[in-house]
Amino acid sequence: MIPTSTVPVRITEVCLRDGSHAVAHQFTVEQVREVTRALDDAGMHYIEVSHGDGLGGSTLQYGRSLVDEMKLIEAAVEQCKQSKVAVLLIPGIGTVHELKQAHSLGAKLVRVATHVTEADVSAQHLQVARELGMEALGFLMMAHSAPVDVLVEQAKLMESYGAQAVYVTDSAGTLLPEQVQERVRALRNAVSCEIGFHAHNNLSLAVANTLIAIQEGATRIDSSVRCLGAGSGNTQTEALLAVLERRGVDLGIDLFKMMDLAEDIVAPIMHRVPEVNKGSLAMGFAGVYSSFLLHAERAGKRFGVDPRNILIELGRRKAVGGQEDMIVDVAAELAKQK
Amino acid sequence: MIPTSTVPVRITEVCLRDGSHAVAHQFTVEQVREVTRALDDAGMHYIEVSHGDGLGGSTLQYGRSLVDEMKLIEAAVEQCKQSKVAVLLIPGIGTVHELKQAHSLGAKLVRVATHVTEADVSAQHLQVARELGMEALGFLMMAHSAPVDVLVEQAKLMESYGAQAVYVTDSAGTLLPEQVQERVRALRNAVSCEIGFHAHNNLSLAVANTLIAIQEGATRIDSSVRCLGAGSGNTQTEALLAVLERRGVDLGIDLFKMMDLAEDIVAPIMHRVPEVNKGSLAMGFAGVYSSFLLHAERAGKRFGVDPRNILIELGRRKAVGGQEDMIVDVAAELAKQK
Repeated sequence: MIPTSTVPVRITEVCLRDGSHAVAHQFTVEQVREVTRALDDAGMHYIEVSHGDGLGGSTLQYGRSLVDEMKLIEAAVEQCKQSKVAVLLIPGIGTVHELKQAHSLGAKLVRVATHVTEADVSAQHLQVARELGMEALGFLMMAHSAPVDVLVEQAKLMESYGAQAVYVTDSAGTLLPEQVQERVRALRNAVSCEIGFHAHNNLSLAVANTLIAIQEGATRIDSSVRCLGAGSGNTQTEALLAVLERRGVDLGIDLFKMMDLAEDIVAPIMHRVPEVNKGSLAMGFAGVYSSFLLHAERAGKRFGVDPRNILIELGRRKAVGGQEDMIVDVAAELAKQK
Repeated sequence: MIPTSTVPVRITEVCLRDGSHAVAHQFTVEQVREVTRALDDAGMHYIEVSHGDGLGGSTLQYGRSLVDEMKLIEAAVEQCKQSKVAVLLIPGIGTVHELKQAHSLGAKLVRVATHVTEADVSAQHLQVARELGMEALGFLMMAHSAPVDVLVEQAKLMESYGAQAVYVTDSAGTLLPEQVQERVRALRNAVSCEIGFHAHNNLSLAVANTLIAIQEGATRIDSSVRCLGAGSGNTQTEALLAVLERRGVDLGIDLFKMMDLAEDIVAPIMHRVPEVNKGSLAMGFAGVYSSFLLHAERAGKRFGVDPRNILIELGRRKAVGGQEDMIVDVAAELAKQK
């Protein structure tokens, strides 16, 4: 029940990136400064700062940021005495130009994120990151939606491009404990780089799934303080640290300082408390993107079917972002079957 | 990963009893009616209705109920076509008189709750409940705070008094998955009656721990819709059902109806969203009663020590309710050690 790897477990705090979704990308420079200062003081390993959809995400489509993320990255870097600032980059949204800019401002690590079947689009960005001397990690999103052998094959691709770790990213918060175990174990047996794990709490399993990932050898762990992330939030940092400490695992991060930070600095910033609600649970249950929810509700109304049945069918068909048209087709079919 | 028992798993929804704490015992008759009607319609097995501290809990010490719990029990019974109404009774707070009254109003099941080392005080109430023809179950609270062999011995006592199930009750939300496994397994091997499990989400592990309990053979499971319970709430009913359904386990409770009820009926009643916050996490980490928190904060201030260190030391000493005096002693000792 303790980490099986000899590589130490390192946490990336994602509240200033995944949490950006939860505050509609309205972080201020002062908020980023205050949160980063406290995280650094507690000994956090990495602090990710970017638009929720990664570098360059501030657009009409993904939501405009209140403050240019480069300013936020700069503010975070200034506060760090021991923590390193990380950024997220989704090729197609973010560019090499933005990666270089973030690096020049002091970002030390990038996670290059792609859909689980599209690792090939990460090659250029991973290579550039390595050339810049950054830590370059690969992030396989919606990891539940591909068979395990495909996940493994895609992780190997990322490793071949220079990724120093590959993440099982449970974007829809839908993986069950046994599915996390199977995926991390399969990667552990297939790649030489580190394995990472990123959870969402939509089924209320994020902390437990993260413990299993660590047990199976994952050493790069994402979490968000006070659960500040998209959907039901991520693995709650301070809860994870408390459980690990109870198990005798010391990551060098001060639990009490993290608890204080959660209560005194992060909670007051939050627009709402991340909880397992109808929308996030439907997402976790069906294994689909959160952006499908609203479309499914509209189509459900139009065709007189429960939007959750639409989401479940979309999950079965492994619908991905950009396939929103499929939603109306599915709704029409379900209406016919009734 | 599916239930190992041949006895079907049955859920007791506790939002109208454990959730009473979270709304300061201010449930109205109309709220109880509405929640019960929807739970019954969804096919919930048992619905517990009592003051948060069980029958007779409405006192200055434990908090006055807005409405006499007997009126709430009556209102709940009236709404039930298929669900059964349950009550909680802590000997010393509730009496045989109140048990008989609840039974005469239509309550079909009672959980007689004692501290994990005090099963002997449950004898009379369990026997009376059996004589009344009620289902009579034993509830061993703060189950983490006794060694496993003591838990087993106390469960055997309850069984000998007529308990048809004995619960591992994680009152402080402090058990780790491996501790749940060990406890349920030990009981499974020691008693012939059913095993129950009651969790709190203070370490964000309630759903995962409940899955483990079920795997180990627990068949009586407590959960609360929308997490409406004391501390960080309990195992969230609709999240648990979603995970079980994903595993192919059908308990005969309608998931979508539970999700609707959580969103449309229960969420609007809640005074605050149950989350893993500083207080509940400290409780789960230290394994102490929530009622110690305020005392520890006061003593911490007086002696200049972190209240969490006081709580941790109290957890080590297995302090129980009524031993609040110990808090000042611990604070003074910690201050000396500094």
